[in-house]
Amino acid sequence: MLHGKTPEQTYQHKHLSTYSSRILEETVAEFSRLPGIGKRTALRLVLHLLKSAPEDSERLGNALVRLRKEIRYCSICHNITERETCAICSNPSRDESVICVVEDIRDVIAIENTNQFHGKYHVLGGIISPMDGIGPSDLAIDSLISRLKEHPVKELIMALSATMEGDTTSFFIFKKIASLQIQEIRFSTIARGVSIGDELEYADEVTLGRSILNRVPYENSATR
Amino acid sequence: MLHGKTPEQTYQHKHLSTYSSRILEETVAEFSRLPGIGKRTALRLVLHLLKSAPEDSERLGNALVRLRKEIRYCSICHNITERETCAICSNPSRDESVICVVEDIRDVIAIENTNQFHGKYHVLGGIISPMDGIGPSDLAIDSLISRLKEHPVKELIMALSATMEGDTTSFFIFKKIASLQIQEIRFSTIARGVSIGDELEYADEVTLGRSILNRVPYENSATR
Repeated sequence: MLHGKTPEQTYQHKHLSTYSSRILEETVAEFSRLPGIGKRTALRLVLHLLKSAPEDSERLGNALVRLRKEIRYCSICHNITERETCAICSNPSRDESVICVVEDIRDVIAIENTNQFHGKYHVLGGIISPMDGIGPSDLAIDSLISRLKEHPVKELIMALSATMEGDTTSFFIFKKIASLQIQEIRFSTIARGVSIGDELEYADEVTLGRSILNRVPYENSATR
Repeated sequence: MLHGKTPEQTYQHKHLSTYSSRILEETVAEFSRLPGIGKRTALRLVLHLLKSAPEDSERLGNALVRLRKEIRYCSICHNITERETCAICSNPSRDESVICVVEDIRDVIAIENTNQFHGKYHVLGGIISPMDGIGPSDLAIDSLISRLKEHPVKELIMALSATMEGDTTSFFIFKKIASLQIQEIRFSTIARGVSIGDELEYADEVTLGRSILNRVPYENSATR
């Protein structure tokens, strides 16, 4: 069956080599450089844009041209912004004494949407992952340390993924900052446990085990 | 289980409402207007572009801005081109006496890549589909008829999808042109049968039945 399909699939690949328009070919090629978008999907997207209003593709095009020109990274926390410092860092009503360390700006967006955190952030730009060739020097750890030296904080919340890489990164940062003996910084990590709405029987053993070990007093959990 | 997941999923949707940058928000919104690309995928694509070279997003952006300005449809066959008539229509070595009727330019690309057709095309821009509100007047059928009136052809190949809609469209065009009695145009449709490389036991009954009914002499099929 698999072997039988091969000529068909070779065909499908070849189908995409000739276009009647150079600009069409160029747009398809540029689209298909994006992750998860192949030549076939790219052609489908471009044909969709050709069928829809001319303003649609122009707006997307202009937004993309402006994207890299206007976006910069906050000089304090490395969040995305259009100014020197981001809206969170320059907001005086946010608690300066708590910094939440996250992997990338998607996590900032996710935590902001919970409305449960009112401190500041520090975006690492990744997590330590030897498999992908990402070491501590590739992350914004040094800037976190100098930030802590300048403005000491009371608490550092490690909000990294609950994976081997996330735990390694948390541990590395904890060790590094502890060794510097800057001051008494309280370290914490976000709680891990059974997701809200999940049924116990479907939770995996490690998560369920952790959530039993890290149980909280009943009143506490009920009011949240 | 399904009910249990609901709060989680509501969360995930809400996560995407606040961004720290207006241009980021704009680009994500524009990307997510494309078919099959949600807010989450759009954000992933934009973050990818932010991590890659600045030229990448600029090239894609410029291509998109130019796309709708430079691309037009061939005045003869409605294929995509950058000139008044497309490369195929303006090529004198292509056989003018055969026109292959297709649904959209993807089909032109697919047939061109087979290197088996040396005539001209006519791109309908869709097929008759009452469910989607597409009727005969939405397709380039009138321009096909005036094209045939001006330059009569020997053969018209209907190369539409092997679906109810495709068959309906073929039949409609056949009836319409036959009723005009322009001249003796030979109508044909592309062969339907078992795909090259497919095993018989996996072919569906209708396809297999058709391929038995429309069998060809052995020498003929062996040389192709």
